[in-house]
Amino acid sequence: MGSARAGTPRRGPRPAGSDARGDILDGARRSFAAHGFAGASLRGIAREAGVDPALVHHYFAGKADLFIHAVLVDPERATFPGEVAARVLDGPHETIGVRWVREFLRAWDVDGGGERFRALIHGASGDECVLARIRAFLGAEVFARLVAATGSDHGPQRAKLAGTQVIGLGLARYVVRVPGIADADPDDLAQAIGPALQRYLDDDLPPRLLSGGDTDE
Amino acid sequence: MGSARAGTPRRGPRPAGSDARGDILDGARRSFAAHGFAGASLRGIAREAGVDPALVHHYFAGKADLFIHAVLVDPERATFPGEVAARVLDGPHETIGVRWVREFLRAWDVDGGGERFRALIHGASGDECVLARIRAFLGAEVFARLVAATGSDHGPQRAKLAGTQVIGLGLARYVVRVPGIADADPDDLAQAIGPALQRYLDDDLPPRLLSGGDTDE
Repeated sequence: MGSARAGTPRRGPRPAGSDARGDILDGARRSFAAHGFAGASLRGIAREAGVDPALVHHYFAGKADLFIHAVLVDPERATFPGEVAARVLDGPHETIGVRWVREFLRAWDVDGGGERFRALIHGASGDECVLARIRAFLGAEVFARLVAATGSDHGPQRAKLAGTQVIGLGLARYVVRVPGIADADPDDLAQAIGPALQRYLDDDLPPRLLSGGDTDE
Repeated sequence: MGSARAGTPRRGPRPAGSDARGDILDGARRSFAAHGFAGASLRGIAREAGVDPALVHHYFAGKADLFIHAVLVDPERATFPGEVAARVLDGPHETIGVRWVREFLRAWDVDGGGERFRALIHGASGDECVLARIRAFLGAEVFARLVAATGSDHGPQRAKLAGTQVIGLGLARYVVRVPGIADADPDDLAQAIGPALQRYLDDDLPPRLLSGGDTDE
């Protein structure tokens, strides 16, 4: 799952015409993964990216903004969560669960074997501001789409239950790096775990639990 | 899910005859939850607990040792993971999944609504030494017992798959605090999520995935 691009430090002056914004995002991903949200500095990220610190402030509103773009949002990439959600929904309803697991793994397996996911979890568990922005972004870009597509009553609550399984898979594969999960074939994991998601979307569940989420979102 | 005991800062000199080791563990839980593993200091924890820093060094071998005891291990508590695993196994095989979810929630709902779980995830995602100790402890105390009890072929890999669902529930309830999951009734969650775990323990799964974990542990 390694990637030379994400794993290779890049220092010194940038070649003319290179992508400064992309370099900053790469440097930020490495810095956040190594030092966490609190430990990484904009100055250190600029040094890692080989750019002037003023350029970081030119492209991003602050550390939280840069964090969200670096680990989650970057819309220029195929891993943009909105794009991932669209691919999950592109197919028959009865296999949404399998596609959800497969596309989740495709999106996070790239770029250094889950370095971005580790940074995401470390940031979300350590900083309330980062957590609030992650929740707002995923709620709008990913969650609302998947909920609408479940086509069932109590869609938000069903999608949240499915989400607990997906995020747990990410934690086991990218953060804890459990042998047998971290190195498993993505399609095998999709076949094994997808039906658990599908069950949350389609099957009978405790009525009080299903109605619990309706008033909150 | 709140608890006045865990949420109330405690400073100043301890009353005579009080439990210094317990006070240190309480102070450590609050400090690690607030500042993360890297950000908390033994001196700050001693101040939070109202004890002399030398006493922290008397009871614990270092910061990683104190972290593991504070958030995970403390054997004087009913939440000791080995005790939790024993309660999961105390009943019929076909309801292990429901008991696993219920006992997991009972163990982590106490003490300030998941403050320990947040500290655990923040520590595990930010420090390789802490992660290695968490993996070793849970592997020996929890995982080996649950695996032996599955009574199926490929027990380790099946238990790991079930573990991804359990840890994802913890992340949604205690770290991200998803409305509808964070405030749901534990028994409702056990009824909804337990069968997903049971399926990992008992049902047909991709053979290559099942054999993947056998050589690693």
